[in-house]
Amino acid sequence: MAGARTSGAVRPDEIRQHNLSLVLSHVHRDGALTRAELTQRLHLSRSTVGALVGDLAQLGLVEEVVPSGGERVGRPSHVVAPHAHGPYAVGVDVDIAHVTVAAIGLGGSISTRAVIPTVPEMRPEQLVDLVADALPRLRTTIGSVGRVCGVGVSLPGTVDLVTGRVGVAPNLGWEGVPLGDMLRDVVPADVPVVVGNDADLAVLAEHQRGNARDCDDVVFLIGRIGVGAGIISNGVPVHGRDGHAGEIGHNVLDPSGPLCHCGKRGCIETFLGESALLALAGRALPRTDAKVAELFKDARAGEPGAVRAIALVAEPLGRAIANLMNTLNPERVVLGGSMGEVFDLARADVEAAVARYAFVSDAGVDLVLPAFGTDSALLGAGEVAFTALLADPH
Amino acid sequence: MAGARTSGAVRPDEIRQHNLSLVLSHVHRDGALTRAELTQRLHLSRSTVGALVGDLAQLGLVEEVVPSGGERVGRPSHVVAPHAHGPYAVGVDVDIAHVTVAAIGLGGSISTRAVIPTVPEMRPEQLVDLVADALPRLRTTIGSVGRVCGVGVSLPGTVDLVTGRVGVAPNLGWEGVPLGDMLRDVVPADVPVVVGNDADLAVLAEHQRGNARDCDDVVFLIGRIGVGAGIISNGVPVHGRDGHAGEIGHNVLDPSGPLCHCGKRGCIETFLGESALLALAGRALPRTDAKVAELFKDARAGEPGAVRAIALVAEPLGRAIANLMNTLNPERVVLGGSMGEVFDLARADVEAAVARYAFVSDAGVDLVLPAFGTDSALLGAGEVAFTALLADPH
Repeated sequence: MAGARTSGAVRPDEIRQHNLSLVLSHVHRDGALTRAELTQRLHLSRSTVGALVGDLAQLGLVEEVVPSGGERVGRPSHVVAPHAHGPYAVGVDVDIAHVTVAAIGLGGSISTRAVIPTVPEMRPEQLVDLVADALPRLRTTIGSVGRVCGVGVSLPGTVDLVTGRVGVAPNLGWEGVPLGDMLRDVVPADVPVVVGNDADLAVLAEHQRGNARDCDDVVFLIGRIGVGAGIISNGVPVHGRDGHAGEIGHNVLDPSGPLCHCGKRGCIETFLGESALLALAGRALPRTDAKVAELFKDARAGEPGAVRAIALVAEPLGRAIANLMNTLNPERVVLGGSMGEVFDLARADVEAAVARYAFVSDAGVDLVLPAFGTDSALLGAGEVAFTALLADPH
Repeated sequence: MAGARTSGAVRPDEIRQHNLSLVLSHVHRDGALTRAELTQRLHLSRSTVGALVGDLAQLGLVEEVVPSGGERVGRPSHVVAPHAHGPYAVGVDVDIAHVTVAAIGLGGSISTRAVIPTVPEMRPEQLVDLVADALPRLRTTIGSVGRVCGVGVSLPGTVDLVTGRVGVAPNLGWEGVPLGDMLRDVVPADVPVVVGNDADLAVLAEHQRGNARDCDDVVFLIGRIGVGAGIISNGVPVHGRDGHAGEIGHNVLDPSGPLCHCGKRGCIETFLGESALLALAGRALPRTDAKVAELFKDARAGEPGAVRAIALVAEPLGRAIANLMNTLNPERVVLGGSMGEVFDLARADVEAAVARYAFVSDAGVDLVLPAFGTDSALLGAGEVAFTALLADPH
C-alpha cells in the first residue's frame, strides 16, 4: 500500500540541494559524464545542469576535463568528473590480523592505503588508536587540499547502523562495543563516522560500481576467518531489525558435523571458515593470513593436500549458496575472500553442488568473483563515509 | 543512490486519481476512519478529503456511516467505511486436497466462501474449471449489486508475478503452467487475475492487517504438505529474480536425514512436512486433510504418539526458524498452517531450539500465530486481487 504522500510546499533551496545531490551521486557512481548525459538522465534542462555543475565545481567536488585516450574524431566534449583533489573518504577494513586504512576519492578510487598488522585479540581501544594515528598520516601521504568527508569502518560482526555500536563480533572477541561513539571522539566533530558489517559493505560496493551493478537481488558471500553474507533485495540493503541479517556463518549445515567454537556442531564456519580450510589441508593452526595465502597458492600449484581441502569445501560451499538461493532467489551471488578463492579453484564442483541443492536449479544464478578483489568491503566503507556529502554537497 | 526524480508536469486528473487511491487504500486497510483522521493522515485539506470521499461514495466504494456500539457521549461522528455492497475480490486458495474460493469485500472481510474438495493430482484445467464454476455461484450467494474487481489465486509453488505462470509446484505435480493466462480465458476481460505463492500472499495479509502489521521485517513460515516462507524486508515483499524466494522447503537440515521425494536427504520438508509429521506419529500415509487434523486434535488430547511426533518436530522447526533469523533478522516470524499448530503445542521446545541455533539469540524474535488462522493466504489472494481497483478507483 502506498504511503501518504505529503503535499507540503518544497522550498527552492531544497530542490537545489536535491539536484546537487543527484548530479554528484551520478558522477560519483559512474565516473565522468558529459553534460548531455547528465541532462538526459536527470530530466533537467541543459541550463539547470550547467548551473549545478558550476556549483559543484565551485565547491571543489567535480571538475570539467577533456577525457584522455579515446579515438573520437573532432573536438572532444568535456566531461564532468570527480575532482582530482576533492574531498576523500577514509575507509577502514578490520580483518582478524590486519586493518586496512585507505583514502578513497569521489568516484571510488583508492588514492592511498596502509595495511597495518594487528595484535591478536585486538581490543576496540587499539583499533580506535590505530584509526586516530592513521588519519594524519593519510593526509600527509595524499598531500592534497582535499578534506576528509567521512570515516567508514567495516568489520566482521553485527552493527547497529544508526549508532555504529557493535553487537557481537565473535572472531574479534567483541560484544557490545560502542565503536561509533569511540571513533567520533577521535575524529573532527564535523566528520561523520559510519560503522558497518563487512559483507553488508562489500555487497554495497559491488552493487554500486562492481560486479553486481544494476542487479536488484544480490548476495555477497564473504569468507574470512568466518563466513557472512551481505544481501540486497529489491535494490535495497537487507539489514533486518537489528542489522544482523546475513549472519549465516552459524547456520548448521550438518548437525553431526565438526564442533564449532559457538558450541553447536556443523555450522557453516566449521566447513567453510579459514581455520576449517587449513585443518582440512593438514596445516597447523592457528590461522594466520600467511598460512591462508600459502594454502591457496599451493592449491593453484597442485599440492595434493591443498587441492584436496579445496575439493572437500566445494560441496558445502555449493550447499550454502543453494540455501541462500532457495531463501532469496538472487540474480547473482558474489563470492569474496576465501570463498572466492575456493570458487575460482573448484568452479565446476561448486556449480554442481549448487545445481544439486538449489530448489529450482534450472533457473540458476550467476556466480561471480568481486570486481574489487579483496577491496569490496573497504570500498563499501568508503561508500557509506560519502553518504552525508552526497546527500548535501554544500 | 537515489534515482533521478523526473520533474515533468503532473496533470490534475493524475493527482485526483492518486488521492482517490490513497483514501481508498487507507479505508481498505484500516477500516472505518473519520474524515478528520483521513485529513490528518493524508496531509490534505478538509475540503479535498470531503470531495474525494464524495467521489468514492458515488463510485459505490465507500459509505459514511454512524459507527455502531461505542460509549461516546454526544453526537457521534460519521466514519468513512468500505461500502457494504461495494465490489468484491475473489480469493482462491489452492491446497493439496481442497480449494477455497471466497468473496472478499473492501476492508478484507470474507462475505462468503466455498471449500471444494479436489481430486488427487488435480490438473491445472480442473482448477480453472473449478474457479469458472465458483464465480457465478459466489455472485448468487452474495446477492448484492457489487461487482467482481479481481481474482487472486494462492498456490503452493513458484509463480511469475507478472504473468501468473507457475514455475514449479512440486506438491501439486505442476511444472510450467500458464495458470494466469488460463484463468484470464474464463473470467470477464475487465477482471484482473493475479496468481501468487501461498506463503508470499500469507505474509502480505498478515503485514497488511494481521499480526505483522507495521512490521517492516517479517517472515511467514507456512506448513502444509510442504513448507515455505513468505518474506517482507524493509516493508517490501522479497520475491527474488524469478519469484521463488522463500522456497526453503528443500533446504537441507541434515544431510544424513530422511530421503526426500526431490532425491536429496534431510530437506526441511522431510522433517516438517505434514507427511513427515504423520509418519513420526505412526499414522498411515498418504496424507489427507482429515488425518492431519486428527493428529493435532490427538496431540491436544495427549495421545502419546501424536505428542511425541510434535515434540520431535519442535527442534527442526526451531532450527529452520533460526536459519531464517540468521539470514534475515526479522522482527517477527508468523507460523501458519501445521507449523503454527506445532508451535502452539510445543512452544517452549520450539523457542528453546530457536535460542540454541540463532546466532544472536538474546536479540530474539517475536514468534506469533497468524491473526487470520488458516485464512492468511486466502486473504492475501484477495489483497492482490484488489490491487488494480486500489490503484485506480474509477
